[in-house]
Amino acid sequence: MNLTALLAAAALLAFRLPGQAQTRPKASALATDASTQGPVFPKEERAPAANFTGAVYVHPLVKDNATFNCVSSVSFEPGARSHWHTHPAGQILLVTDGLGYYQEAGQPVRLLRKGDVIRAQPGVKHWHGASPRQALSHIALNVHTEKGVVTWLQPVTDQEYNSYK
Amino acid sequence: MNLTALLAAAALLAFRLPGQAQTRPKASALATDASTQGPVFPKEERAPAANFTGAVYVHPLVKDNATFNCVSSVSFEPGARSHWHTHPAGQILLVTDGLGYYQEAGQPVRLLRKGDVIRAQPGVKHWHGASPRQALSHIALNVHTEKGVVTWLQPVTDQEYNSYK
Repeated sequence: MNLTALLAAAALLAFRLPGQAQTRPKASALATDASTQGPVFPKEERAPAANFTGAVYVHPLVKDNATFNCVSSVSFEPGARSHWHTHPAGQILLVTDGLGYYQEAGQPVRLLRKGDVIRAQPGVKHWHGASPRQALSHIALNVHTEKGVVTWLQPVTDQEYNSYK
Repeated sequence: MNLTALLAAAALLAFRLPGQAQTRPKASALATDASTQGPVFPKEERAPAANFTGAVYVHPLVKDNATFNCVSSVSFEPGARSHWHTHPAGQILLVTDGLGYYQEAGQPVRLLRKGDVIRAQPGVKHWHGASPRQALSHIALNVHTEKGVVTWLQPVTDQEYNSYK
């Protein structure tokens, strides 16, 4: 590793050390471009196995309260997906990374890619998850949560999951 | 450019051609990892010069309606920032890329980095924008918009903008 690479690695580490998220960097950090690498929101809590197939992680961004609705980042490992479910007031998904699937009941499986926006209408039965070989991360916006957040239904079968053409 | 690099570039192009966003890729695309490169949400409309300093772009993700509140991705070129403003019902910012500034009246300028979450409380005067040498992109969530979206105030002076220590 030459000196330039070493300095670049050191600059990257200055942004990456765990527990340093609240530390104010020196002014020289303003010139560093390390923040464009890696996921937007890291994994955090493991999602409950009762409602998901495979490894799924939830990173709460805004907890539900009267001023702000609840916002989370959800990360699905390859092959992982939610069970079928509905949202009484609908839900917005903003895909931030990777490749995934989204399906509404009676419709074909759709491919999800970074930058895609999904509006799950109130009461429409659907599921979402990663593609078989690539993980997926999306932001989930739950709106008008005074009407309820989610009603969980049955797991997505392998046949349903593998029906993407 | 060797054959491997050429194939990688071709694979990337398959994901990048303008106007192809709605085209369903072949099943082989499921193995490609090009989607981790570049911004989450591209620039779109230029934001009105009346309310911003410098080049700022707004990409509407969800238009305001009764079911879903309005959601946008906002991109600030280096040095660009909003004017001072308030939100009658508050606003959530989710930083998706780059490096920027956020300041509430009477408080020091804070550095914004990818993954940061800001909750601007209802009525609190504030501004946000890019850092001097790096662009910033964030998602803006406007909640309870039946109370109003934004009240614009005076521009952020160079002295205020350059006060970050």
